Amino acid sequence: MPETLQVLRSRTVLRNYAPEQLDDSLIDQMLECMLAAPTASNKQAWSFVVVRKPETVRRVRAFSPGMIGTPSFVVIACVDRRMTDGLSGEVSQKIYDTSKLCVAMAVENLLLSAHALGLGGCPVSSYREDALRVLLDLPEPIEPVLLVPIGRPAEAPTPSDRRNKNEVISYEVWGHGTAA
Amino acid sequence: MPETLQVLRSRTVLRNYAPEQLDDSLIDQMLECMLAAPTASNKQAWSFVVVRKPETVRRVRAFSPGMIGTPSFVVIACVDRRMTDGLSGEVSQKIYDTSKLCVAMAVENLLLSAHALGLGGCPVSSYREDALRVLLDLPEPIEPVLLVPIGRPAEAPTPSDRRNKNEVISYEVWGHGTAA
Repeated sequence: MPETLQVLRSRTVLRNYAPEQLDDSLIDQMLECMLAAPTASNKQAWSFVVVRKPETVRRVRAFSPGMIGTPSFVVIACVDRRMTDGLSGEVSQKIYDTSKLCVAMAVENLLLSAHALGLGGCPVSSYREDALRVLLDLPEPIEPVLLVPIGRPAEAPTPSDRRNKNEVISYEVWGHGTAA
Repeated sequence: MPETLQVLRSRTVLRNYAPEQLDDSLIDQMLECMLAAPTASNKQAWSFVVVRKPETVRRVRAFSPGMIGTPSFVVIACVDRRMTDGLSGEVSQKIYDTSKLCVAMAVENLLLSAHALGLGGCPVSSYREDALRVLLDLPEPIEPVLLVPIGRPAEAPTPSDRRNKNEVISYEVWGHGTAA
């Protein structure tokens, strides 16, 4: 099996991080992977703020009930409305909606690259947007979608239980759970 | 560099597929990777229909202007409202919104596993939902988010141009484009 399939299958949520400053070159490798995600109509309607300074990480975390441990860095993954506005209303909304999905795919690339490098993280959707906007100087059209804390595992993470595959995958028509 | 980083960085959109039936065991490996994606509050509020029969693939494609070539199979990636309803209104909406992002992350896992296996695909957001609902017998709370055609490349795909990294990544506060 290709190494990648093993990485894809073994990634799990990591919430507790060892205190460690990561090299910028290592962070940069993860950011390159993040930016290679699919992008609707090649709009790349996204914007990412990378927070590495411990004091700023601490403050982001204070505004984010969904962030448990203290990561080495945090990526604030945003959709950029400037890239989706200005088209006709319906098209604009469609590309905006799909661009949010692309931001999520970029986040997954970031998490997978971290996991491949022996690090980890999790997507965080619980945060105070108003406070983040002030702290990070986010202009109005830059809308946070997910926060992504990344760091080295403080302890081995435990995989979460998953629903039975037959409950969530159907074949040919919805509700038919067998592969045959 | 770990193989996985290379896979993450080199995945690109694939729209033209060689005519080929793929083994169920190969498809199954990709589906396992897909289901290992992050999931908000571990709700796994998702549902996937895998269409492999050529006649059904043909019909899905006829309803999907965003699908160019004829893939070996298509995954209809849906959010499952049954798993997000029943909580208090605001929490329910939040988990529903985040669950859509998780569906996108599952789609990215699927695309990456395909790429790791020498296959490829692309997320498709342009389709006739009403026609798909009838064809696939989708009940009302199962809402399609993305369609994902997968197949073997008919020719080597060409990477798309990307915005300059400094345009989309800031450090510490928004708008500061240098890593230092």
